Amino acid sequence: MNIDDLPIRDELRGQSPYGAPQLDVPVQLNTNENPYSLPEPLVARIAERVAEAARNLNRYPDRDAVELRTGLAGYLTGTTGHAVTKDQVWAANGSNEILQQLLQTFGGPGRSALGFEPSYSMHALISRGTGTNWISGPRNEDFTIDLAAATAAIAEQKPNVVFICSPNNPTGTAVEADVVLALYEAAQAARPSLVIVDEAYVEFSHRASLLPMIEGRPNLVVTRTMSKAFGAAGLRLGYLAADPAVVDAVQLVRLPYHLSAVTQATALACLEYTDTLLGYVERLKSERDRLVDALLGLGLEVTASDSNFIQFGRFADTHAVWQAILDQGVLVRDNGVPGWLRVTAGTPAENDAFLDAVRTVSKEL
Amino acid sequence: MNIDDLPIRDELRGQSPYGAPQLDVPVQLNTNENPYSLPEPLVARIAERVAEAARNLNRYPDRDAVELRTGLAGYLTGTTGHAVTKDQVWAANGSNEILQQLLQTFGGPGRSALGFEPSYSMHALISRGTGTNWISGPRNEDFTIDLAAATAAIAEQKPNVVFICSPNNPTGTAVEADVVLALYEAAQAARPSLVIVDEAYVEFSHRASLLPMIEGRPNLVVTRTMSKAFGAAGLRLGYLAADPAVVDAVQLVRLPYHLSAVTQATALACLEYTDTLLGYVERLKSERDRLVDALLGLGLEVTASDSNFIQFGRFADTHAVWQAILDQGVLVRDNGVPGWLRVTAGTPAENDAFLDAVRTVSKEL
Repeated sequence: MNIDDLPIRDELRGQSPYGAPQLDVPVQLNTNENPYSLPEPLVARIAERVAEAARNLNRYPDRDAVELRTGLAGYLTGTTGHAVTKDQVWAANGSNEILQQLLQTFGGPGRSALGFEPSYSMHALISRGTGTNWISGPRNEDFTIDLAAATAAIAEQKPNVVFICSPNNPTGTAVEADVVLALYEAAQAARPSLVIVDEAYVEFSHRASLLPMIEGRPNLVVTRTMSKAFGAAGLRLGYLAADPAVVDAVQLVRLPYHLSAVTQATALACLEYTDTLLGYVERLKSERDRLVDALLGLGLEVTASDSNFIQFGRFADTHAVWQAILDQGVLVRDNGVPGWLRVTAGTPAENDAFLDAVRTVSKEL
Repeated sequence: MNIDDLPIRDELRGQSPYGAPQLDVPVQLNTNENPYSLPEPLVARIAERVAEAARNLNRYPDRDAVELRTGLAGYLTGTTGHAVTKDQVWAANGSNEILQQLLQTFGGPGRSALGFEPSYSMHALISRGTGTNWISGPRNEDFTIDLAAATAAIAEQKPNVVFICSPNNPTGTAVEADVVLALYEAAQAARPSLVIVDEAYVEFSHRASLLPMIEGRPNLVVTRTMSKAFGAAGLRLGYLAADPAVVDAVQLVRLPYHLSAVTQATALACLEYTDTLLGYVERLKSERDRLVDALLGLGLEVTASDSNFIQFGRFADTHAVWQAILDQGVLVRDNGVPGWLRVTAGTPAENDAFLDAVRTVSKEL
């Protein structure tokens, strides 16, 4: 029996599941993971908090995740200087689930979402998965957002949801606050629409978070994740900050008890170690800057990066370069942006291995 | 700012989030939770396995949850005697997410799902949440499925998805294998449709699982959960067994890395303690039977139960009786079935408290 023999939806026929190729290679710099393992005291604290939660595992978890949302609000307040309360914060299994809930609420059949591509490919995929029509918006050749073209696209297409990814994945490009503001105003004039600012990588940015912009803008949502800065990709904990009405609204579509007691306990333990984990972020920012300099020194082009990854190029045969680097034991990512590849900032040793591979490959090209 | 000031979908306006009222009452027998806490050695084993997972938490989890699916397949094989492999099993955050993925794949906009009501209310809610048109099918007055009426409804409505909940929540009613077979054949003749047999409570049944029916029936899916028999409602671990093509198909819509490493680790620890946990199930079945006898002895009606809960009645003013029992410190569930309430089998002491409350209330009525 094959998938196509089943009575699945027509638009799913012939599709493949989304996901980066998982190859067994010594140096894996392809999925923007944080290379630093959690410190051992945090591992012990997680075990302790999970054991506590496990003693009540026969009961449903806190459906509203109040303690966790309070902790996340405290983190946002502490790191941005902008006071946020638990009523402005919502959490789910990865920012993917956050985005899915937002699209179920504000997008869906008969509605549309617009993003500026290339960007995080899940924006388009989750839009389609929720029946939301996807509209690909423009970018400049340097991957910044062309404000005139972008506002024209919003005015013309009148999307119900607008995605702004800052720093943008896979390019690393930050979006300036005045650009976000102009896009928000264009989106309100056109519809009004929900504007989602995806800040998954913001802790690695040279710029401040756009979080304070939620104030007085009920249709602006900032999404975050613990996968990157907190080094907890395996935890699957995404969250949003917005007007409390948005938090109320997504509860109309969230699956009841969507967030397990063990996930909540683990996330709370990680929040206790915020300072330590943000120390790793500083190391990664230095490594990112070192990689940028080294790649430029090798005569390559680099897209200005505010993230823990770097888009580098340009290559006539992108896939051949990706393969040649892989042949050196280093896995980077080909996101399908012609001429460009993406590398995640790893440990100093991983980054050295990557640079060695690029040097070797450059000679061969 | 209120929800209705936001640009949410029209069909969400005026709705409330789904969820049982959570009241702080001494005896909570309202959400069909298992009253037995996990044994302390299992709590320790969870802490151990989670700590192991936490050491790699900076990496994404196993996207395909292969070890966990292998364990779940072993559990199904061991408890039903019907051999199932990991390729026939898929896991997600609660059976709600399993159902959501199935509806995204086989239901969705322009398609319909039919269930026999009263039944688990999430079947209708998740259908609507995925844009699937919900069709309410009939039941007999004793809450069994009226096969003639049911097959007629399937032939007439041609639903894309058919839900069969066995044992049925909130009535406790099991569905006989020949009825399931006839409904499956009617659904294949009409469309063909996907038939979902929701066995969340099957471990408490007097009857064997319907799992062996997936053999040779690629459009038949059995869904399960660790929330009830495994006493792990807080874990949010649901799963399905079906033809491997169905497992492939839901991967077209699942969010990548939907299942966290800590959830996978905790579920694997619970599977190691299957025998102990199934021992608690036997105790609960005895308590369920004792409750049935006692309620009948009090002159009440009881719907034949194959589950860890009992539907009892009948009452002229159902809500008044619910409130009167609550006033005695015992929380049961009013599922909106006129004349009937639902009580979960708890510990012997909790059940005694419930029976005392019912005795007191009966005198007042």
